[in-house]
Amino acid sequence: LTVSSGEELFFAGGGTVDVTSEITEQNVTEQGIAIEVAGERVPGVLWRPADAEGPRPVILIGHGGTQHKRAPNVLGLARGLVRHLGYAAVAIDAPGHGDRITDPEAAEAARRRLGARLTGGGSASRPMTFPPEQARQLQERTAKGTNEWRAVLDAIEAAGLSDGRVGYWGLSMGTAIGLPFVAAEPRIQGAVLGLFGLSERPGAAAFAEAAANLSVPVLFVFQWDDELMSRESGLALFDAIGSTDKTLHINPGGHVGVPRFERAAAESFYLRTLGPVGAPVG
Amino acid sequence: LTVSSGEELFFAGGGTVDVTSEITEQNVTEQGIAIEVAGERVPGVLWRPADAEGPRPVILIGHGGTQHKRAPNVLGLARGLVRHLGYAAVAIDAPGHGDRITDPEAAEAARRRLGARLTGGGSASRPMTFPPEQARQLQERTAKGTNEWRAVLDAIEAAGLSDGRVGYWGLSMGTAIGLPFVAAEPRIQGAVLGLFGLSERPGAAAFAEAAANLSVPVLFVFQWDDELMSRESGLALFDAIGSTDKTLHINPGGHVGVPRFERAAAESFYLRTLGPVGAPVG
Repeated sequence: LTVSSGEELFFAGGGTVDVTSEITEQNVTEQGIAIEVAGERVPGVLWRPADAEGPRPVILIGHGGTQHKRAPNVLGLARGLVRHLGYAAVAIDAPGHGDRITDPEAAEAARRRLGARLTGGGSASRPMTFPPEQARQLQERTAKGTNEWRAVLDAIEAAGLSDGRVGYWGLSMGTAIGLPFVAAEPRIQGAVLGLFGLSERPGAAAFAEAAANLSVPVLFVFQWDDELMSRESGLALFDAIGSTDKTLHINPGGHVGVPRFERAAAESFYLRTLGPVGAPVG
Repeated sequence: LTVSSGEELFFAGGGTVDVTSEITEQNVTEQGIAIEVAGERVPGVLWRPADAEGPRPVILIGHGGTQHKRAPNVLGLARGLVRHLGYAAVAIDAPGHGDRITDPEAAEAARRRLGARLTGGGSASRPMTFPPEQARQLQERTAKGTNEWRAVLDAIEAAGLSDGRVGYWGLSMGTAIGLPFVAAEPRIQGAVLGLFGLSERPGAAAFAEAAANLSVPVLFVFQWDDELMSRESGLALFDAIGSTDKTLHINPGGHVGVPRFERAAAESFYLRTLGPVGAPVG
């Protein structure tokens, strides 16, 4: 599995994964990768321990809306998973995000719109709504993002990176895309989700059905004063999750204020549900 | 601090603490203790690492209604705190509980009443109510229990057992007694509370005021299908807690079904708020 920057691919199986860069820092090797999905080049990042080889548990990390594969919270989470647990982690740019932004002005406008709604706390009094055209685009993005995760997981497994244990982490848009993905993907064994709720928006019925179909352990993280999601919608989504092993962590503060200690809680969650590197659970 | 069973007291300071028994098991030394409070002998247990000396963080553990100082969940929590963190832990029998039961028939009737309400899940549709006489007794018990914790903490500190870092853990009745104690006790630096709610019962206003006066970090643990406490009452109590650093863990299941992994979460909480044995936080 040793590769150097610029190598075409390092995978034994069918996946086509380019390694575009490599850097090692504080015992974490970070590789820029690109995976071909449906004719499109999806850019991602793979983090692994610098001093260990061989397959290991892998956590797929889905970033939030207007963020990207190397947003500070993604980076911090990934490095922690590698350093503290010896896991591998993978993040990709969601459709229309990060290096996949094709319309910088539209992306900037979306960032401004979101920023205007993030007031620094104050629970949402009404569900987040979108004009029909935008709602349709969001549904398409979710479907596309879900498909991409499936392809990325195929490639990760074909490459022999995973020891068969795979978890998912994604809040907000990372739940919008990730929850349907996890619900339909039997290879995922545990998921951290959150900052999202049930609502009346288009596609909500399918989303609620996906939530009911979840059966793996779930840690659901919610902010008590989320400007985008009402308390009721968040509690309703937690309620709707079909998994018998599910746990809800609520903290005061707004949408972007999830406290740092939830990162340690996520690590504990994966350790409990996937097990330590050398010793699978069960 | 070395003592042997039957010794009168091992304290340098003013506290009068008898050591009534001692046993060491898997690196945990457990001592039966008794502390005189307001002319009454309060029986307790002290757990410490068998292979370490000197003052250390201490967690005070308040058991639930009809339980006692060595109930399985108290014992498991205490041993974990000692083994995993190197802390000390202290539990006492609450008024009218454990070795302090003076009316075995009344205690057995209380156990039966509680058992009849614990159906194995199904969120409480109405708040737990008591006849006036029983409500008055509960208020007295709370006040007495709170005073006793204060005296026990005095004795623990006088004995040089604590390095100045003290936490509290108590769910259900352990919150009924412990929350007012922690709110009024500046020596407590972090508390795990839960399985309790705001209600209309006698004394509820004072309890809500105590909750608002809390300022230390709080981990609040709640069961989503608690037969004794409605979801609304639990969320309202979490809301009422004045601490800015507060976090809520909700799990499916009934009052006595708190999952085992919340024990690890409590350890993480103390580690974060009090710090490791050798290194205080802040």
